[in-house]
Amino acid sequence: MEPRILSNISSPADVKKLDSEELEALAAELRTEMIAVTSLRGGHLASSLGVVELTLALHRVLDCPKDRIVFDVGHQAYAHKLITGRYKDFYTLRTFGGISGFPKREESVYDAHDAGHASDSLSTALGLAIARDLRGTDERIVAVIGDGSISAGLALEAMNQIGQHRTKMTIILNDNSMSISKNVGAVAQYLTDLRTNLRYINLNENLSRQLAETENPVSRAILSASKTMKGTLKRGMLAEGMLFEDFGIKYLGPVNGHDEKALESVIAAADDFNRPVLIHVMTHKGAGYKPAEESPDLFHGIGPFDIATGEFKKKPGAPSYTKVFADALLAEAEENPDIVAITAAMPSGTGLDAFGKRFPERFFDVGICEEHAVTFASGLALGGKLPVVAIYSTFLQRAFDETVINVALQNQHVVFCVDRAGLVGADGPTHHGAFDLAYLRSIPNFKIIAPSSASELASALHTALRLDGPVAIRYPRGATDGSSTTAPEMLPVGESRLLREGSDVALLAVGHMVGRALEVARLLEAEGISARVVDMRWVKPLDVQEVRAAARSTSLVVTIEDGSLIGGFGTAVSEVVAAEGYATKVLPFGLPDRFIQQGDIEELFETVGLAPEQIAAQVVHALPTLMA
Amino acid sequence: MEPRILSNISSPADVKKLDSEELEALAAELRTEMIAVTSLRGGHLASSLGVVELTLALHRVLDCPKDRIVFDVGHQAYAHKLITGRYKDFYTLRTFGGISGFPKREESVYDAHDAGHASDSLSTALGLAIARDLRGTDERIVAVIGDGSISAGLALEAMNQIGQHRTKMTIILNDNSMSISKNVGAVAQYLTDLRTNLRYINLNENLSRQLAETENPVSRAILSASKTMKGTLKRGMLAEGMLFEDFGIKYLGPVNGHDEKALESVIAAADDFNRPVLIHVMTHKGAGYKPAEESPDLFHGIGPFDIATGEFKKKPGAPSYTKVFADALLAEAEENPDIVAITAAMPSGTGLDAFGKRFPERFFDVGICEEHAVTFASGLALGGKLPVVAIYSTFLQRAFDETVINVALQNQHVVFCVDRAGLVGADGPTHHGAFDLAYLRSIPNFKIIAPSSASELASALHTALRLDGPVAIRYPRGATDGSSTTAPEMLPVGESRLLREGSDVALLAVGHMVGRALEVARLLEAEGISARVVDMRWVKPLDVQEVRAAARSTSLVVTIEDGSLIGGFGTAVSEVVAAEGYATKVLPFGLPDRFIQQGDIEELFETVGLAPEQIAAQVVHALPTLMA
Repeated sequence: MEPRILSNISSPADVKKLDSEELEALAAELRTEMIAVTSLRGGHLASSLGVVELTLALHRVLDCPKDRIVFDVGHQAYAHKLITGRYKDFYTLRTFGGISGFPKREESVYDAHDAGHASDSLSTALGLAIARDLRGTDERIVAVIGDGSISAGLALEAMNQIGQHRTKMTIILNDNSMSISKNVGAVAQYLTDLRTNLRYINLNENLSRQLAETENPVSRAILSASKTMKGTLKRGMLAEGMLFEDFGIKYLGPVNGHDEKALESVIAAADDFNRPVLIHVMTHKGAGYKPAEESPDLFHGIGPFDIATGEFKKKPGAPSYTKVFADALLAEAEENPDIVAITAAMPSGTGLDAFGKRFPERFFDVGICEEHAVTFASGLALGGKLPVVAIYSTFLQRAFDETVINVALQNQHVVFCVDRAGLVGADGPTHHGAFDLAYLRSIPNFKIIAPSSASELASALHTALRLDGPVAIRYPRGATDGSSTTAPEMLPVGESRLLREGSDVALLAVGHMVGRALEVARLLEAEGISARVVDMRWVKPLDVQEVRAAARSTSLVVTIEDGSLIGGFGTAVSEVVAAEGYATKVLPFGLPDRFIQQGDIEELFETVGLAPEQIAAQVVHALPTLMA
Repeated sequence: MEPRILSNISSPADVKKLDSEELEALAAELRTEMIAVTSLRGGHLASSLGVVELTLALHRVLDCPKDRIVFDVGHQAYAHKLITGRYKDFYTLRTFGGISGFPKREESVYDAHDAGHASDSLSTALGLAIARDLRGTDERIVAVIGDGSISAGLALEAMNQIGQHRTKMTIILNDNSMSISKNVGAVAQYLTDLRTNLRYINLNENLSRQLAETENPVSRAILSASKTMKGTLKRGMLAEGMLFEDFGIKYLGPVNGHDEKALESVIAAADDFNRPVLIHVMTHKGAGYKPAEESPDLFHGIGPFDIATGEFKKKPGAPSYTKVFADALLAEAEENPDIVAITAAMPSGTGLDAFGKRFPERFFDVGICEEHAVTFASGLALGGKLPVVAIYSTFLQRAFDETVINVALQNQHVVFCVDRAGLVGADGPTHHGAFDLAYLRSIPNFKIIAPSSASELASALHTALRLDGPVAIRYPRGATDGSSTTAPEMLPVGESRLLREGSDVALLAVGHMVGRALEVARLLEAEGISARVVDMRWVKPLDVQEVRAAARSTSLVVTIEDGSLIGGFGTAVSEVVAAEGYATKVLPFGLPDRFIQQGDIEELFETVGLAPEQIAAQVVHALPTLMA
């Protein structure tokens, strides 16, 4: 059944026409729609449920797309999408060719930037605001950022310039007191104190006082209607939001994030200050859907679930690489008390939550602070500890410099467990881990292992913990191949593993592409082509002997990886083949030189030509001329 | 003449034995020594002059190397080096094989980490502190960080965790009210307000009150001696250092950074708080050397100078790449009002100061905030501006993720002018720009130009400003070849420039290695070898036609670059040669897979085998077998 109001909303202009009752109904319909679609497609439900009223208030006060809303990360943008002309297509959320899980400019003029990585909204919004000033126009620029994202270095750097420039812009601090899991850090503690201190204060009274400077008639009218003073004024300097005022940013709030009217009045009033204003909005992550309210961390990034019970539709099957890593690390940590583990706000995503429970004093969740995570790890290593940094490939990009300067240059023994390497599926281009092999390979002192199975991952970790200097282990999102696991063992550095002899073509593969290579070999066998298959294991140091053997004994060297074709594993093989002057051709398979869209993982592999049939066909095509 | 006291200081223990008069004399001798050596070697004089008393106080109170001092960046570590056993070798400062301009563990057990990039001291110190706690020992951990460095995202991220963990450590905020040039940003403004507010307060009185909690007898004795209340108490909440207290860090100060006794008492007292303490120390950059006091920005990173006058010994010669870029950008900006320019605290180093003077409203110095600089640029581009980010290669590493996600993924037209690419000389491994070609090349949508002369640089900029999407122009530190300049012109995308025909070997070069390639060709000619020489100009898109032509028409393809051999330009050539199956060998020259030390630039080129004679010799060695 079509929702009564939502189905008639084609742009924010339609939202502006609604009366309070209709607005309330629309809020409910938006929640129903989000729950229905994410129950099928997965997605970021809890964040988006929390900001329904905020989104409505923003679009009723602002005049988008002239005015710009810059959503941080974009997990919270579903309501925004639904009321900016994307309701009809919303059922395609996160599917191949469908609506993105994040704001995306090519999808709508209402999307101000392509979001995905935390904490970029303030810098982006400041850029838009200063461009506006230079142009001499008067559109409003509003950034919406969560309390987890605002403690990241990038956001704090932006506040540093915003506070200096003092150009007009609005920052909505969407404070649901969690980032992805429980929030950590001093800024989070500060916000908690701020909320607690203000618990007894009538919010509107507080705002009314803060807004004394404003001339906005709507705001004044609404606010003056609730002038009764309730509770004691437990307000110290804390309650004034001094942290933000110290940065030169006017603080308004806190405001109840589910009181649409109050939100409208504050958002409107913020426009009257001729400088940057931060509105502190308190929301409930998961609001309006009981299972999500009760476990907002579980309902952060989710797969399909049963709406009635809130239970996730788990696929039965082999354990994920993440789980295998988590178990293997726990076992190693029982043996070696020097092992410490670090995550940047992803205890559950990286599997480190188990470690944190078992060894709370050896576990560090530093918040969305990847730069600090890596530098902190180098400090721990300098102090004699053995740090394991578990991090997604795409987010390690944030700490590239620290990885080079603080870890590799100082040759620190830090083990990077690089999860979500390669294609990740529905989260799309901001979340694929395409570049890690390329950017890590160029760093001196680094060793890189790409395990091909659960057993290999456990052995890779076992090995990395016993080497010196920086070691990266990279593994993908999703399930291992389910092969039976063996006790972890030391992997000889730089040695590959021959899986199958063959004389026509050599298939050199890394990570979970090794299984794919074996499949290609079987397809080729059916065509009468004999394929050598090698699990290269180490991307650095590369098994140069194996590359030579492959180049000498076959007519075609095929490389298979799920990382960037430029600079990655295949490139490492090409460097050897070109430098040694073999006449063999290298046929590389991997991620092409473009950003890869979202979608089902197998669909994506086909898009980039990594389906076994595609690889086999290309080999068959390339071989005859070479063998002639 | 040997300095009377300094020449007898072999470790901090000797400093502890000195009486006040001797200490004062030592401070003067340290300054004389630093001035004498930097006048010959160049270096970071002003910062180090400013912290002489602070360094003495630290080493008198602490018990190093058991206690650890983590210097941020390390520009201020000369006094530390001189009193920790390196006085005799200090004359080798910044030379090949000599004393490093930065703290370096392999040089001394007194150096806690290898510094060089700003803002890593807090994370590193926290790591050391927590490792200490886990071990159960009691050494003191002290970070020394400047007011410029503390506003960088990495430092603020560290404060976020420090404030949460509340383990014992001391942060010395060395506030000289400038980073490298004038300080910018809200944090800097905050510190200025803090100083101004406290101007009328007797510092010792202020400290005495703050230290009421401490039981340290020395501190109490010293402080109680000066209990007279002077001036009015103009202290608001600002004066309490609330910004730091909001982060959960105890604030002490401000303290006069040139009052050695006061410093000792505060540093000693900080140990009594069982939580993180920040000591706000006010220093004068350049203190004790008039020319440096008057122009601390000029005396930040310097070349040789005349001690008496403070005048720099400028080498006459061709303009630097930086100057050529700066002039070219000014000319372009006169024509195109949309051009805006961004630097991260390097207006003079990048040459943008001229732009800032001519177009103040189009110029943005965002402080030591590279992540924000790039994201802010993407926001400006979204707002219709044409941003030019001028940044050193090694510091762009800090913004790798933002370059990928905010610029490249969104295909923003942002022009990156990557200065100090390749080897930089005396600043050494933290400052060489070794990796930019490798890490930029793997990013989709990116174009990369490596101009080989002044004219080429101007044309590269002219071209980059007229293309779409992200474009990087990378050029080295130092002088251009002095060839006469022509009017800038559009460079055809992905097309190389044939400089010399030849049939035996092809020398494909980029950037200022092109001049070197021509020299190699002349050397080879003398040996009867005919060399084709090509200025490849574009590292991406690569001129594949030229690579093919080179591979087909000669027996050996030589690539020459001053960037990482792994993943860079030579690798790009190898990818083509390997994929197309040429029997030609590729002989790549570039920076090897290790971190390169400091030294004179030509010495460094020899170390890595990039002297023309070395290249020619290797070609001569490789060719006969190939031509046979």
